[in-house]
Amino acid sequence: MKTQSTNLRVRLPVFVFVAEVAIVGLYAAFVTYDEHADARFQHNKTNPMDNAVYKDYPFFTDVQVMIFIGFGCLLAFFRLYGFSGMVFNFLTATFAIQWAILVQGYFQFSHDGKIHLGVINLINAEFACAVVLISFGAVLGKTSPLQLLIMALLEVPVFAVTEWVVLKYIKINDAGGSILIHLFACYFGLGVTFVLYRPRLNEGHAKENTSYQSDILSVMGTLFLWVFWPSFNSALTLKGDDQHRAILHTFIGLSASTLTAFALSAMLNKNGKLTMADVQNVTLAGGVTVGASVDMMISPAAAYALGMVGCTACMLGYKYLSPFLARRFRIQDQCGIHNLHGLTGLISCTAGICAILMAKEEVYGPSLYEIFTYRAPMEGDPKLQELQMLIPGLQPGLGRTAQEQALCQVAAVFSTIGASVLGGILTGLVLKLPYFASPSDDFCFDDELFFDVPPDYDSPLKLSNTIPTEDSAA
Amino acid sequence: MKTQSTNLRVRLPVFVFVAEVAIVGLYAAFVTYDEHADARFQHNKTNPMDNAVYKDYPFFTDVQVMIFIGFGCLLAFFRLYGFSGMVFNFLTATFAIQWAILVQGYFQFSHDGKIHLGVINLINAEFACAVVLISFGAVLGKTSPLQLLIMALLEVPVFAVTEWVVLKYIKINDAGGSILIHLFACYFGLGVTFVLYRPRLNEGHAKENTSYQSDILSVMGTLFLWVFWPSFNSALTLKGDDQHRAILHTFIGLSASTLTAFALSAMLNKNGKLTMADVQNVTLAGGVTVGASVDMMISPAAAYALGMVGCTACMLGYKYLSPFLARRFRIQDQCGIHNLHGLTGLISCTAGICAILMAKEEVYGPSLYEIFTYRAPMEGDPKLQELQMLIPGLQPGLGRTAQEQALCQVAAVFSTIGASVLGGILTGLVLKLPYFASPSDDFCFDDELFFDVPPDYDSPLKLSNTIPTEDSAA
Amino acid sequence: MKTQSTNLRVRLPVFVFVAEVAIVGLYAAFVTYDEHADARFQHNKTNPMDNAVYKDYPFFTDVQVMIFIGFGCLLAFFRLYGFSGMVFNFLTATFAIQWAILVQGYFQFSHDGKIHLGVINLINAEFACAVVLISFGAVLGKTSPLQLLIMALLEVPVFAVTEWVVLKYIKINDAGGSILIHLFACYFGLGVTFVLYRPRLNEGHAKENTSYQSDILSVMGTLFLWVFWPSFNSALTLKGDDQHRAILHTFIGLSASTLTAFALSAMLNKNGKLTMADVQNVTLAGGVTVGASVDMMISPAAAYALGMVGCTACMLGYKYLSPFLARRFRIQDQCGIHNLHGLTGLISCTAGICAILMAKEEVYGPSLYEIFTYRAPMEGDPKLQELQMLIPGLQPGLGRTAQEQALCQVAAVFSTIGASVLGGILTGLVLKLPYFASPSDDFCFDDELFFDVPPDYDSPLKLSNTIPTEDSAA
Repeated sequence: MKTQSTNLRVRLPVFVFVAEVAIVGLYAAFVTYDEHADARFQHNKTNPMDNAVYKDYPFFTDVQVMIFIGFGCLLAFFRLYGFSGMVFNFLTATFAIQWAILVQGYFQFSHDGKIHLGVINLINAEFACAVVLISFGAVLGKTSPLQLLIMALLEVPVFAVTEWVVLKYIKINDAGGSILIHLFACYFGLGVTFVLYRPRLNEGHAKENTSYQSDILSVMGTLFLWVFWPSFNSALTLKGDDQHRAILHTFIGLSASTLTAFALSAMLNKNGKLTMADVQNVTLAGGVTVGASVDMMISPAAAYALGMVGCTACMLGYKYLSPFLARRFRIQDQCGIHNLHGLTGLISCTAGICAILMAKEEVYGPSLYEIFTYRAPMEGDPKLQELQMLIPGLQPGLGRTAQEQALCQVAAVFSTIGASVLGGILTGLVLKLPYFASPSDDFCFDDELFFDVPPDYDSPLKLSNTIPTEDSAA
Repeated sequence: MKTQSTNLRVRLPVFVFVAEVAIVGLYAAFVTYDEHADARFQHNKTNPMDNAVYKDYPFFTDVQVMIFIGFGCLLAFFRLYGFSGMVFNFLTATFAIQWAILVQGYFQFSHDGKIHLGVINLINAEFACAVVLISFGAVLGKTSPLQLLIMALLEVPVFAVTEWVVLKYIKINDAGGSILIHLFACYFGLGVTFVLYRPRLNEGHAKENTSYQSDILSVMGTLFLWVFWPSFNSALTLKGDDQHRAILHTFIGLSASTLTAFALSAMLNKNGKLTMADVQNVTLAGGVTVGASVDMMISPAAAYALGMVGCTACMLGYKYLSPFLARRFRIQDQCGIHNLHGLTGLISCTAGICAILMAKEEVYGPSLYEIFTYRAPMEGDPKLQELQMLIPGLQPGLGRTAQEQALCQVAAVFSTIGASVLGGILTGLVLKLPYFASPSDDFCFDDELFFDVPPDYDSPLKLSNTIPTEDSAA
Repeated sequence: MKTQSTNLRVRLPVFVFVAEVAIVGLYAAFVTYDEHADARFQHNKTNPMDNAVYKDYPFFTDVQVMIFIGFGCLLAFFRLYGFSGMVFNFLTATFAIQWAILVQGYFQFSHDGKIHLGVINLINAEFACAVVLISFGAVLGKTSPLQLLIMALLEVPVFAVTEWVVLKYIKINDAGGSILIHLFACYFGLGVTFVLYRPRLNEGHAKENTSYQSDILSVMGTLFLWVFWPSFNSALTLKGDDQHRAILHTFIGLSASTLTAFALSAMLNKNGKLTMADVQNVTLAGGVTVGASVDMMISPAAAYALGMVGCTACMLGYKYLSPFLARRFRIQDQCGIHNLHGLTGLISCTAGICAILMAKEEVYGPSLYEIFTYRAPMEGDPKLQELQMLIPGLQPGLGRTAQEQALCQVAAVFSTIGASVLGGILTGLVLKLPYFASPSDDFCFDDELFFDVPPDYDSPLKLSNTIPTEDSAA
């Protein structure tokens, strides 16, 4: 009975094989190597060590660890949903990346009718994947793997289009992805969970809790994310001092938010004890908060302050806003992504705008026009030539003022939120189709629904009645 | 009684200290630094940042994580054999590497009567170590640590000789090590397990099962292997675009095989549920399958297709072939290395041969002769000089045609399989000597035989009878 | 009752917020970017890829993994103290680093009244942090998070001053930090634990034991430390062949000590079994032992021998010295840091002195004067000019002989030990103040004192009496 409507035996293979045939066909038709991966583009002046792979690959592996191990462990925090948290993350991430290679490739890396593939595309695709995984946090425990794949299938194109419009038409500064990654992912996820609202879960669920081991596993995930977050925030900045600052600011921001999180966790607990959920989530707030201004000359102290402020907002969000949203607005945000990515993302955007408004040539020198590339003078402007003497290879910009750039940032925030909410709601409606094997309320947060589980699954509770015997072990 | 014949108190130290004295003596007599590690070789034109350590070390650390953490966690999947899986892996790997530094060094890195040591040797030694650890998978749970050390002691030289013969005399393309690493390791391991056949274990063993925690730990191992596999497959390719392609193909191949593994896992399960053993193993098939052609211009789509095909073969192997081999051919392949390394290795070699046969100058440009180095014209051939204008420093080759190279690949496959099967069988015979403390059937898959275990070891089963008290904890 | 004196609700936030306000104020007043992170310092000749971040960041991330994940998992080895081990490590490390950025910055990286910040400072700060975490090992399980923060607050300045005096006035060779990191951390920690002596704990504590899962987690920590230790020992060496040798020696030393640890573990166990505590700790001894001579031309065989000797000393220390120190000298060294860092550190210093005494130009070539920078001729010495022809950019030194340098090393050892013991004892006295929430003897090694714990906490023992119900789960 219980698995009647959630049996994956046909549905999952059908989806996967159709998707794979489509993907391999599209790869065959449209995906080729970029100039750094194609043997034909190497010539007698090529120095192999100048290949872009050596600039990009270290950041790629760091982000890989975050996506597959960091997220995977972090999402395994439920006592009876560790298999699902870790494994659905693996499945969804894998599919999202291979799909994003195509979709983002179409918008950003295609010319001459081909998508040109290098490690740089993989980094971009992992960012699209991070978007899907953050949204996944809103519906963790309440979705089938098939629903997650469908979500990835739909979210990646909406994200890729939004990203393309914002980058190509609005043209913003967002090195750490506060707008495009965190805000988009958050509001998309909230849109999905709004549609998938389950009133009965507002009263709590018997399986919606952690165990000693699952809490430790989840903290390990946090630590992997924490350690490599500087690579995430700096993977796509300009090389050189920009990337250097992005690393410093991210480290300092995370460091400040971690310390703050411990203080607030003890302060807001009625027995003055620490709460593992805070350690697992709120410590990371600083990484998001420094995002939008991460490569700018904001000063180490400002990065520290951003970490403190972001962490405080995130903590208060978990404590007061999330329960309120669930009760009043039907938004059941399972992992609190609105606190960790939404509130912090908004603070980050605000800080980014302030940093843009305060950016001056005295502080940045001529590289102001490299970082704020749209503030560079337009083609033909005599100031451009002057600057190009100081910075060889400086690209002509749009001659924007700081205020104009700030307005563009605001426009990007609103259009990103709009697109993501809309996309999330539409995606939620699709996910409701019965074919996609949504678990019943009783089987939320339960590995047994989609996994063959070992005999000690749920043993502390079962032990009172039945002691598993050696023979029952498979 | 039970530990009478498996007490390590004398045997393990005797072996280790004899080995260590021999190794330190041989290091003292024969091992010196290579030109990148020796202070004397630095002169006033040396740029420290051009030191080979900066090219090799990032790949070395990635492979280290795979060997010690990836394999360690993956092999800890048995409920009562987690200590052994993880710790014997640590012990065996450590010994195999220090031994391989000598043995491989003798064959590949010695001149003037000395082995010249740099990080590049360590990478090579880690590959030899990976061979031993893969073979270990065939006999996991059924061998003492002393047997594993003896296996490493014997397998490393057989591997090093085979590698040397194949590379020096047959001269093949095998960047990802499909032939030399995966096929060798697989058939060596099968040879060993064939000799160590235990008929009683064919009926299953009470301890041959997983727990909730051990399954999660093992998936973490899989994820570490998955994340760093592109580094494994590309660590020894040519620098530049070759290494770049190797990374791309490995990622794409793994990605395709992961998605396929999920689909097949649900499809072949009678309840349409996912099986953790599939997630732990079959997802990785694509990394092996792309190996032999990983640096060639096979196209991203081909890498994707290889991942799908390899995964399918691997899954069917686990489902149908492994039980058949155990019943009919006395080959008890504990971790199914024949599926994950043998079948996929054979597919990979076939794909490599096809890629070799199809390789053309239109696709590769002149660097065809860098990648397929034996197809470069011989010394004195006027075509060589022409090519050296296009690629400065191109080495003269053997002037082989594509067909000749393909035949060499076939020869390498057969000689590798032959050497490994023979080596494995002989090693198995040695391991049967009673001195090496082979566990009895009853104590297979049991940490208690070789470890002091904490009081909660095996607690779910013991609890019904005896509740451990606080005092009994050491 | 039980949490009356250890409630953190006010104390932890008060400390943290005061510290944060002070830190952010000091950052604002004194911390700016270094020349590699400051946009103004980039000019038209700057090649972004020459930025120091690309030399330092890979080593920084490796050390990050060691600090946050390696130490975190390793210290989680107690059955009921996993949250605390991992999370207090996270908290203490974060605070120690941000504090060390200021304190070390003041001594080592300040000019023109400003501390100049780059990733290189972060690496240095992580080393100061490692010092605190090693000392933490001596008092693990017996200190509140507030005490740990106070310890970090006091230890970092004592360390920074000692480091500054030793490096600036005594001027030593200590690439792997055997003197400054390991000896300092060890004797500081012993000083603290001497003052915090708890006589009742000498008889053992009911919770002072491991579980199956905690042992596995702790071994994972060991493996992370093991894998990245070469990066730790080489992070601050000269670039080029020096760093290359540091990596090789650390790997070989660890490798030898691991093999030795297994042999000794079986040999010293009365049933000839392996002990997980040995695998977790003693295997790492070689990494410390090679430290002081890690970048010198000591030969691979010497690194191997150092690993064996260090491991043996460490193992005998655990077996015989630690119990003796606890009984006779009131030194309760919880993790045995005196064995893993003290004894091995002393051996390492001795080896370093021997290597210094034996260093000759025949072996090192002219780069002798780069590695042993104080042996370079003084400004004005004609030999200096001669050497500068061979090594452009060689800095003038102090013209020290090998014997003089060796004496300086001895002086550094004694002054470091003196400063650390004194600092540790004074810090211990401060930590005894009742405000800092020291746990009572009964609540040592117990997560419940400072954490909200899930219902299955301590379940194997509780289960006999009370089966947790689903409702009791938070």
